[in-house]
Amino acid sequence: MSMLSRRDFLRAVGVTGGAGTMFATMGALGLAPAAVAAPDFEPPKASDYHLKGRTAGSVVVLGAGVAGLVSAYELGKAGYRVTVLEPRDRPGGRNLTIRGGDQLTELNGFHQRARFSRGQYMNAGAARIAQWMVTLDYCRELGVPIEVFTNSNADAYIHHSSMPPGKPVRFRTAKADTYGYVSELLAKATNQGALDAELTAEDRERLTEFLTDFGALGDNLKYTGSSRRGFTTWPGEAGVPGEVLGGVPTVSEVFASGVGRHFSFEFEFDQAMLMFQPVGGMDMLPRALTRAIGPQKIKLGCRVTSLTQTSTGVTVVYTDAAGRSRSLTTDYAIAAMPPHLLTGLTHNLGADVTAALSAIQPFSAGKIGLEYRSRWWETDHRVYGGITTTDSELFTVWHPSYGYHGTRGVLIGYYHFADVAERYAAMPPAERESTAVALGERIYGAKYRTELDSSFSVAWSRVPHLESAWHVRTDSPQSPIFKPLVDPAGRVLFAGDWLSNMDAWQHGAIEAARRAVTKLHARALY
Amino acid sequence: MSMLSRRDFLRAVGVTGGAGTMFATMGALGLAPAAVAAPDFEPPKASDYHLKGRTAGSVVVLGAGVAGLVSAYELGKAGYRVTVLEPRDRPGGRNLTIRGGDQLTELNGFHQRARFSRGQYMNAGAARIAQWMVTLDYCRELGVPIEVFTNSNADAYIHHSSMPPGKPVRFRTAKADTYGYVSELLAKATNQGALDAELTAEDRERLTEFLTDFGALGDNLKYTGSSRRGFTTWPGEAGVPGEVLGGVPTVSEVFASGVGRHFSFEFEFDQAMLMFQPVGGMDMLPRALTRAIGPQKIKLGCRVTSLTQTSTGVTVVYTDAAGRSRSLTTDYAIAAMPPHLLTGLTHNLGADVTAALSAIQPFSAGKIGLEYRSRWWETDHRVYGGITTTDSELFTVWHPSYGYHGTRGVLIGYYHFADVAERYAAMPPAERESTAVALGERIYGAKYRTELDSSFSVAWSRVPHLESAWHVRTDSPQSPIFKPLVDPAGRVLFAGDWLSNMDAWQHGAIEAARRAVTKLHARALY
Repeated sequence: MSMLSRRDFLRAVGVTGGAGTMFATMGALGLAPAAVAAPDFEPPKASDYHLKGRTAGSVVVLGAGVAGLVSAYELGKAGYRVTVLEPRDRPGGRNLTIRGGDQLTELNGFHQRARFSRGQYMNAGAARIAQWMVTLDYCRELGVPIEVFTNSNADAYIHHSSMPPGKPVRFRTAKADTYGYVSELLAKATNQGALDAELTAEDRERLTEFLTDFGALGDNLKYTGSSRRGFTTWPGEAGVPGEVLGGVPTVSEVFASGVGRHFSFEFEFDQAMLMFQPVGGMDMLPRALTRAIGPQKIKLGCRVTSLTQTSTGVTVVYTDAAGRSRSLTTDYAIAAMPPHLLTGLTHNLGADVTAALSAIQPFSAGKIGLEYRSRWWETDHRVYGGITTTDSELFTVWHPSYGYHGTRGVLIGYYHFADVAERYAAMPPAERESTAVALGERIYGAKYRTELDSSFSVAWSRVPHLESAWHVRTDSPQSPIFKPLVDPAGRVLFAGDWLSNMDAWQHGAIEAARRAVTKLHARALY
Repeated sequence: MSMLSRRDFLRAVGVTGGAGTMFATMGALGLAPAAVAAPDFEPPKASDYHLKGRTAGSVVVLGAGVAGLVSAYELGKAGYRVTVLEPRDRPGGRNLTIRGGDQLTELNGFHQRARFSRGQYMNAGAARIAQWMVTLDYCRELGVPIEVFTNSNADAYIHHSSMPPGKPVRFRTAKADTYGYVSELLAKATNQGALDAELTAEDRERLTEFLTDFGALGDNLKYTGSSRRGFTTWPGEAGVPGEVLGGVPTVSEVFASGVGRHFSFEFEFDQAMLMFQPVGGMDMLPRALTRAIGPQKIKLGCRVTSLTQTSTGVTVVYTDAAGRSRSLTTDYAIAAMPPHLLTGLTHNLGADVTAALSAIQPFSAGKIGLEYRSRWWETDHRVYGGITTTDSELFTVWHPSYGYHGTRGVLIGYYHFADVAERYAAMPPAERESTAVALGERIYGAKYRTELDSSFSVAWSRVPHLESAWHVRTDSPQSPIFKPLVDPAGRVLFAGDWLSNMDAWQHGAIEAARRAVTKLHARALY
């Protein structure tokens, strides 16, 4: 397990963020090797072969996660004979949607069977898609309907342990106060001449105009609260002008509360709204890929034990779902399984491949889905979607982005990482639930406990055949030590988000798969 | 028509906002009479009568807009015999969804028949619902499914006439630069001691920590750009770390561009995301209300000409859909039609009612829906929903919040107010379209013209029987001059968003309707 502390990790990737943005950001800021323009992906085409009078070869893909499925899909479109070997009982990998009846036995034996109601689900792994991500292109191409994923909500809460139980602050209120005081302070400094060296008179005038609007400052450029904080009584009919939420904290209180550290999350290139999700569950994407590939080409319950490449092909030995040992020889292979499990195979890929794989280590995260008998967050809190942030070990609580106004709903009760995730991984699921509910109750009050129906939790480090939430590398993916994986000499190519600049994102898995497919096709053709 | 200038109007209600928030904000800030806690609405119940051994009376409702429909719905639930008279050919009023085949003849004779494709629509009037608004409660109660309305999007554009054509800036980029420089300047002022009178040493340390994160400042507390601006090449597979969008403007350029004035829109109490809309069109709400009331109780094509109240009832004379003059006598009436048209009826409500109605004047707004043969904004711009802002007379361009990845889509090509709206109202629809497309092309490029299929525009001041987008009052709705409408002496009650603190919002119409219903019921019972 990674030894990153929670604090280090959060600092690195943004308090409540996904992950895997470290190297992208480093690259972006010139800390990593210079950016290379991404070539547009040209999918292999069957006609590429016909022009040469040849037929496409055979490929075995190890792992039916998103990288493996996209590899198989793109190769299949070009006529390659593809077999996907997957040790789990369903395709998708860490794109995992849990519905009623789904089962999970974690590595230490904890067994759960989801009791979610019909129509209710949790996306236990991949959960959000930014507009620029290639993941959306596959949703479009495969006809997977999408809807908004509510990554930010002005009405969601911030709750810190320094606040009284049941007295969280809404994002809209925290922002109004923070932006109000930031504007007041900067307007004052500007007007006192503190920034005359940096700003012209015209700049200062424009800046002050901006701050007045941005901070909702009064005529004397003071912040004293505004309707942006929200209302105790909302404006209604004539006679009910509304009563703005009072109790404006002082500037010292605002910055001491630390609420402001949660704002930048929604500015990040991979987290800014609008974000999206497939309608009905994130696994609608692997399901659609599976249909497009042909389900018969994906062999479930098949655990690979060895991988041998020769000058003419690749031989894989695996144990099938019935427990029989089998072998398969193909022209090429794409290894799209977790790198730290790949090192456990018997293989002849060489020491440099093993060294590269060993530089990619698993990282822990966990999520719990809590199904409630009512959508009390909508009726009692007027919170429709979005993410509440806390400094407790829940890290975040996610309101569902589907099923608004329904009778039931599934909250994500925590999404945490690293050492905290490992601590929860060691708890029996019932204890995870009781711990999560006790902490959530401090934010939302009694219904967080009384309306609960059932829960399902996933400790990613304990999920068989995956054994991690994502990975951390000792170096940038552009480092020469990963060259044996990025540009391998033989007939085995590699794909996964762990071989991209977007770790933990399907976008990274897909881009890496496209690179592997492009290389394989080029090699096969010439 | 209102004589408010666009500039005055925009200053009053927020650049790109809806409207009607002036008095709410004034009330909120203590400029209007003190806030009164809104009593929880207690719907009239049939049992209220049974307890008294009486039966509920009869009510005529003038106008089947949202206020009229909610009045009829709530009274109907309690057993009142309700008749709704509506001069237009459908219920809903300014909650108007335009689909293929819908027709509109504006007052000056301009006729349009919508050619939108199946499944495509525009919400020509009411279009968004905030989480706290009572409108959502009716969606829940009536089983109207809702989805996110994309009121803000980091990837939507800002385009000012000072920017080159086809070179808008994305909100994410504009925010990164503005917040970056604001943070740098305030950190500098703070560290130079300019705010030592306002801030303790601890405050200053916390503020600097906040600013470093909020502005993505470097170690020297300088802003030099960040990945929050977006990328020229997005991070991808190993070897493609991504290339951050360059060309960071100077601090002077940022504030001279004026982009920052568009940010506060999303902090406002009535506009902050998350916002919602009914699935399939805003008129799913009036349709559901109509079903619940009983469609036979809503008489379409019926134009009221006179309203006479006596000590025992109310008599309404109207012309029905066949052109026959009819009259109807009921126990009570609720006048839920536009106040400036109500003054045109022959009535005996008294001079104070006429004076109050005359203090509520119509205001102009217009929208155009542009149907495109492709969703080029998704494929070419990676913009999925949200609102682009411009300083041109388009004011805003709205990307659809439905039909993602479909073959077609309807943009709202402008949503403008006051004098600009009046200028467009005077143009034939074809000219509105060509003018709007020429301006939109400056933002989005050639496809804004070449992919266009058809358009439909609504100039609200010219829509028969409505003749306004919303209203402006000479004073707060709490002013005594409106008492004859808010608390009328006789058997005629009044309802509409124009009698609320949320003009132009369905929330205001509903709250006013609930007040009228409550008063009517109290009066009828005792």
